[in-house]
Amino acid sequence: MTNKEKLYSKFESELLVRPDDIDMNNHVHMTKYLDYLLFARFDQMAKDYKLPMDEFLKRGYTWVATSISIDYKRSLFLGDHVIIQTQILEISGAQVRINYWIIRKDTKKIAAEGKANFSLVSIESGKPVRIPQDILEKYTI
Amino acid sequence: MTNKEKLYSKFESELLVRPDDIDMNNHVHMTKYLDYLLFARFDQMAKDYKLPMDEFLKRGYTWVATSISIDYKRSLFLGDHVIIQTQILEISGAQVRINYWIIRKDTKKIAAEGKANFSLVSIESGKPVRIPQDILEKYTI
Amino acid sequence: MTNKEKLYSKFESELLVRPDDIDMNNHVHMTKYLDYLLFARFDQMAKDYKLPMDEFLKRGYTWVATSISIDYKRSLFLGDHVIIQTQILEISGAQVRINYWIIRKDTKKIAAEGKANFSLVSIESGKPVRIPQDILEKYTI
Amino acid sequence: MTNKEKLYSKFESELLVRPDDIDMNNHVHMTKYLDYLLFARFDQMAKDYKLPMDEFLKRGYTWVATSISIDYKRSLFLGDHVIIQTQILEISGAQVRINYWIIRKDTKKIAAEGKANFSLVSIESGKPVRIPQDILEKYTI
Repeated sequence: MTNKEKLYSKFESELLVRPDDIDMNNHVHMTKYLDYLLFARFDQMAKDYKLPMDEFLKRGYTWVATSISIDYKRSLFLGDHVIIQTQILEISGAQVRINYWIIRKDTKKIAAEGKANFSLVSIESGKPVRIPQDILEKYTI
Repeated sequence: MTNKEKLYSKFESELLVRPDDIDMNNHVHMTKYLDYLLFARFDQMAKDYKLPMDEFLKRGYTWVATSISIDYKRSLFLGDHVIIQTQILEISGAQVRINYWIIRKDTKKIAAEGKANFSLVSIESGKPVRIPQDILEKYTI
Repeated sequence: MTNKEKLYSKFESELLVRPDDIDMNNHVHMTKYLDYLLFARFDQMAKDYKLPMDEFLKRGYTWVATSISIDYKRSLFLGDHVIIQTQILEISGAQVRINYWIIRKDTKKIAAEGKANFSLVSIESGKPVRIPQDILEKYTI
Repeated sequence: MTNKEKLYSKFESELLVRPDDIDMNNHVHMTKYLDYLLFARFDQMAKDYKLPMDEFLKRGYTWVATSISIDYKRSLFLGDHVIIQTQILEISGAQVRINYWIIRKDTKKIAAEGKANFSLVSIESGKPVRIPQDILEKYTI
């Protein structure tokens, strides 16, 4: 980790595993971890960055994932309370790069962790858009 | 409603709409309402009926839906807090019949409502199983 | 069934159960049956009614479910090929009422069946829109 | 790529995007790409490796993802036919490492690509299990 990475805050969100998250292996389905990450992003945009997704949509922007990696450490199960932490690593051009951790609340153990890149895009053109200065300021906290 | 139906308690659960619940129409996808119902069932089994799904599984039972009806009244959106109320209407043999209401928390307005039948089945045989007396007693509150 | 109902054609679509359709009971999740119905609707709009969903969107319309009922008869499993048949029962105002059957292809047995109402709505206003005459003509086959 | 990697065959599966795969951005939801990968794995186990998932389950094994990476290149849309190619890169101990490509059929363009590790685990213990020799032989084609 570089010094720069340390500058940004780590935020967290919480959810409860739903029955429709469980797959034939009786644990949370592998792709739902990424839906939990997405939930945390949206939750934290509103709660922590004070820029809810609605604001982006109103300005004609949306966010799309450009790359994601995930390491699965431990299973999550029905009834588990889950903590999702995210931390911005770098913001550059249209891209924000984040680190994330998915944690089982009662044991505090990491269930999965990874990195993800999201790009701001214009809803109309579908093309990446340089993150505007005012958004950048709200995000670099 | 018969007198008998009035005997059973109405319970409620709460969740927050997740981004993966939203569809191309920018509202909660029609099938997610039923996943919210299922979430409420599982939540209330543990919280209100004091018989968590785990208990059923340990005894070799699971629950499956045998019929569901739903009337959609109003859309739910990203960020909405949702209340799901369920009330048992009738228990008979292997079947429990419930009434449910899916409510947007801030407006208190009904987003959808319907009825559902669930059957207790043996995990091993896949066949319906008459609801045992001790479970019946916990459920008829 | 009235004579009128007999006038409309029954169409069918086919899909293969995906792993993400399977739930903790090791069969197709109860809400996925309705996603199969939705798939069939979209597939048949293009294939049979010659009015793909894209056309509706271009004209500023979308379809939303207003009520659904489903009776589950038999489980569907991983690897099953599934036939979904739909038949329009009635078209009136903004609403189309359909009958549907979800069938396991190899046994030809009905896995689930039910009725559903969909409403044409304006994307801009979110309000129901009377089905235009040219669409009505394509649908009443 | 090492010589060893070149030894294994690349297989492909095909599916049609379903309406429930589409998200608020009107394209296939980011996590559904990984469900498409999983579908291809299951499909190819049966079709190409002649070892359907059922066989694994009967022997008391299941597969779980241990890590996944994905690069999103282009959006997929409702109605798209999708080709999913996978190629085993390495098999070692309980782990199989694969390369995968998700391709829009009509343009032949890559929508996403990545790598994934899956581990064979014992259903009973939940622990990784060294891939048995007879399975290894079927997989190293």
